[in-house]
Amino acid sequence: MTTIYLVRHGIAGQFGDFENDRDRPLTPEGQGKTHRIARHLNTLNIKTELILTSPYQRAHQTAQILLKEGLSDHLETADFLEPDSNFDPLHQWLTHWPGKSLIIVGHEPNLTNTAAHLIHGTPNNNIQLKKAGIIGLETPSKGEILGRSTLFWLTPPRLLL
Amino acid sequence: MTTIYLVRHGIAGQFGDFENDRDRPLTPEGQGKTHRIARHLNTLNIKTELILTSPYQRAHQTAQILLKEGLSDHLETADFLEPDSNFDPLHQWLTHWPGKSLIIVGHEPNLTNTAAHLIHGTPNNNIQLKKAGIIGLETPSKGEILGRSTLFWLTPPRLLL
Repeated sequence: MTTIYLVRHGIAGQFGDFENDRDRPLTPEGQGKTHRIARHLNTLNIKTELILTSPYQRAHQTAQILLKEGLSDHLETADFLEPDSNFDPLHQWLTHWPGKSLIIVGHEPNLTNTAAHLIHGTPNNNIQLKKAGIIGLETPSKGEILGRSTLFWLTPPRLLL
Repeated sequence: MTTIYLVRHGIAGQFGDFENDRDRPLTPEGQGKTHRIARHLNTLNIKTELILTSPYQRAHQTAQILLKEGLSDHLETADFLEPDSNFDPLHQWLTHWPGKSLIIVGHEPNLTNTAAHLIHGTPNNNIQLKKAGIIGLETPSKGEILGRSTLFWLTPPRLLL
């Protein structure tokens, strides 16, 4: 069984203000809120073996804040967490990862589609994940994780601040 | 659009200690925790037009605590919220209810199946709702609510205390 926390990146700079979308950073407000949420998660004793993040600046900065606030001691980037990525490589990675707890930092609609794949076996756009929002899932201890994982948490950031 | 909060009753007396399952009350611990959660919901400015509850003692007591802590001014019971009820009468009721915000207090697996019906159009047992846990949903402003509502919140009680 693996506990997976899907975290959407915090509030970032405007699309169009940066030449390349992958370089958009968190705004000062986004950084502040993400720090506060990370501290709150710390008070809930959330500690994971790894933070896996999209390499895009706004996600990577969010992941670094979670690392700095002590939610994990390890951070890795994964190209298959970039926006508009197909779910298959993440599915393969999750199926073979031997750890017990993990934070994934990425983008929408990838994250809610990942959750829907794990819970229902199909994508779905009826789960709402705001910026710096969190989804908590548990995969089964054996066998296929698609459609067989459990959703135990979904929270908008305003309910964590 | 209606905002629906599904709340599972708090910790209740042991099955078997009461002649009729519908009479099992909340334990003192269940009452205390439910009060604390209700106060927390109040600090999040959750205020609804109606609390609709299963008539079973453990649910009705939970609903009365939510009422007392100010989460609504109105409380009604509905037989179609009893354990093992079919989703159809609740579906009909929700489709015709004209209000904008509602708390439903009931039992498992009815509540998570209600959520799955609203989000995906089908029941599903991969959503975990602990006692005194909460699910937040928004139905669309027009048309069919099945498979077209949005899940924005799911929280175990330990993350609210």
